[in-house]
Amino acid sequence: MTNQHIRPNLQNIPFWNPTQILEHERKMHIHRMDLNECPYPPAPGVIEAMNKVGHTLNRYPDGTCPELTPIISERTGVPEEHICWGGGSTQLLNSIAEIAVSPGQNIVAPHLVWKRFQGVYKIVDADVTVAPNKPDGGIDPQALTDAIGNNTRLVICVTPNNPTGMMMSEEEVQYVSDNTPENVFLFMDEAYFEFAMHDGGPDVLRILNERKGPWVVSRTFSKAYGLAGLRLGYALCSSPETVDAIRLVSSTFNLNGFAETAAIAALNEPEYTQFILDSNATERQRIIEGFRTLGFNPMESVTNFVSADIGRPGTAVVKKMRERGIRISTLGESEFDNYIRVSMGVPEDTEAFLTALDEILGAT
Amino acid sequence: MTNQHIRPNLQNIPFWNPTQILEHERKMHIHRMDLNECPYPPAPGVIEAMNKVGHTLNRYPDGTCPELTPIISERTGVPEEHICWGGGSTQLLNSIAEIAVSPGQNIVAPHLVWKRFQGVYKIVDADVTVAPNKPDGGIDPQALTDAIGNNTRLVICVTPNNPTGMMMSEEEVQYVSDNTPENVFLFMDEAYFEFAMHDGGPDVLRILNERKGPWVVSRTFSKAYGLAGLRLGYALCSSPETVDAIRLVSSTFNLNGFAETAAIAALNEPEYTQFILDSNATERQRIIEGFRTLGFNPMESVTNFVSADIGRPGTAVVKKMRERGIRISTLGESEFDNYIRVSMGVPEDTEAFLTALDEILGAT
Repeated sequence: MTNQHIRPNLQNIPFWNPTQILEHERKMHIHRMDLNECPYPPAPGVIEAMNKVGHTLNRYPDGTCPELTPIISERTGVPEEHICWGGGSTQLLNSIAEIAVSPGQNIVAPHLVWKRFQGVYKIVDADVTVAPNKPDGGIDPQALTDAIGNNTRLVICVTPNNPTGMMMSEEEVQYVSDNTPENVFLFMDEAYFEFAMHDGGPDVLRILNERKGPWVVSRTFSKAYGLAGLRLGYALCSSPETVDAIRLVSSTFNLNGFAETAAIAALNEPEYTQFILDSNATERQRIIEGFRTLGFNPMESVTNFVSADIGRPGTAVVKKMRERGIRISTLGESEFDNYIRVSMGVPEDTEAFLTALDEILGAT
Repeated sequence: MTNQHIRPNLQNIPFWNPTQILEHERKMHIHRMDLNECPYPPAPGVIEAMNKVGHTLNRYPDGTCPELTPIISERTGVPEEHICWGGGSTQLLNSIAEIAVSPGQNIVAPHLVWKRFQGVYKIVDADVTVAPNKPDGGIDPQALTDAIGNNTRLVICVTPNNPTGMMMSEEEVQYVSDNTPENVFLFMDEAYFEFAMHDGGPDVLRILNERKGPWVVSRTFSKAYGLAGLRLGYALCSSPETVDAIRLVSSTFNLNGFAETAAIAALNEPEYTQFILDSNATERQRIIEGFRTLGFNPMESVTNFVSADIGRPGTAVVKKMRERGIRISTLGESEFDNYIRVSMGVPEDTEAFLTALDEILGAT
């Protein structure tokens, strides 16, 4: 009876806290390789910039980011009135689904996507059609668009995708854009955009700009800029009307007073972002080679995490790693029970992970 | 045709930006008396605490606030598992409505409430019944609960209320709690809680704790703690199931990396909060007397803003004030066209406002 005031679609879903620090972890050095965070602190200029605005925090900031928006407009070619901001791109996932999908209407999405999308589906109470992945775990453009039906309001596509780390090719993005009907809203989540660019990925925005139907791209300062705790993401939209709707559902004051200042400072230190991306690629190569040395075939990640089939249930390995202070994760879908996902850390994290993996797998 | 992908309930609602700084305002000293902000910066210890965590912002914070929650639990007597956090209590307004109300279901609310509630109604696509206010602008407990029907899922009550600044008496809160059926979710928005306490207000939580049906109280660090830009509010809930549902709809990572640290620091400087509340009461008295001197009868505010009938359209006065660099607001409801609302500032803001009011009204 303590549930009856809650909508049926939101009942009995216990909260899973991905950031929780367990009791035994308080006393040890933790290798935090489970949340796809940047292992380096924000750039020195970013910290300096944030320290200068603390005294203004009694005021509500302008959530339209009037100084940052022109910079993003200049960099992307997207007009300012087509850009809006979210408390991380995570908030934008909610908002994008909420503006388009009424209860019972259909969302088409790849089978393997970030776990949070399950929450988004629940929130909008959608009918969801999941399209199977390609055998290698990549998004299958044809399976995705073939799943679109008359009741479909939103197609979700993620490149590079989490938890695979794989990006789509230019032809694949083009296929999805071309084969999503003009009356269906196409959402491309580019949370790992900067990593894709670093690896020679396609220009998703150019392809979408040629699309006749509505679309939206989300990006974030959480990953390549090392600002997960800043909660700042943005949406590039095909129309100002989409911006208005996203702003309406995202609440009046959704950004904190540090966000705009810190983001501008981060964009002003491109060499630091380059360092983050280069270091990430180096550690990723080490992890990939480590998996291969043990006889495993990791997914073709371009991001700050790598997933691999380790030939036995990932859950047990994740648990044993955590006992040692190394936090990694499973993929969260039953067909991928034998996989683990590890986020890139600093070199010492890589060493700790590979050593532990060798020991744990050798012992099982 | 740029709208067809947006749900009908969210179409054609232009975004209103309350924080926008107009071109002419960039060159002048602004008296920002329109957003019910605290005019004083955060406490020195809060700024110091925030400056110490900037280097951790590459990590996602724990949105359950494991160190802050026990403190709030201790202060309120509400068990920890009945407490959750929002990006300002503004985010919680959305979440609270979203967990309870499906499209077409009914919300009962007072006629005069904070403008953002209009957005909340749109988001959940609710059928809304607004209960008339008492002649003095206060919430009418009987009118409110009489409006509850078979389709009602949520009753919204706000004390102290915005834009009136008035609080409900103990008897009135008791009446609402007693007369909201056990199957209806009762939401008490206490964004101005600390101001009510400062003015001898009733213990709303004690009354709700005796209620058999589901309830939730929201509070914030934005007002009395001078931390609007921190985006931190909390919900005290009648059940852990309500907490789970609010967390589900509020997104996985809804708090920034400064929030918990800053809030704990703010609670550790009670004398600064006392200074804010005392100063506010002083300036409020000056503003009230200023209105009375001009022959007007301001509403009985206990908060950090005062609304008054000035006997002519408020919109024109707001506009003239803004030209002079003094930002105040209207009440946004046609029956209250002749009212203005002014937020408390520092003593110089009070003087600027009263001087300008005298001059503007003298000239019209």
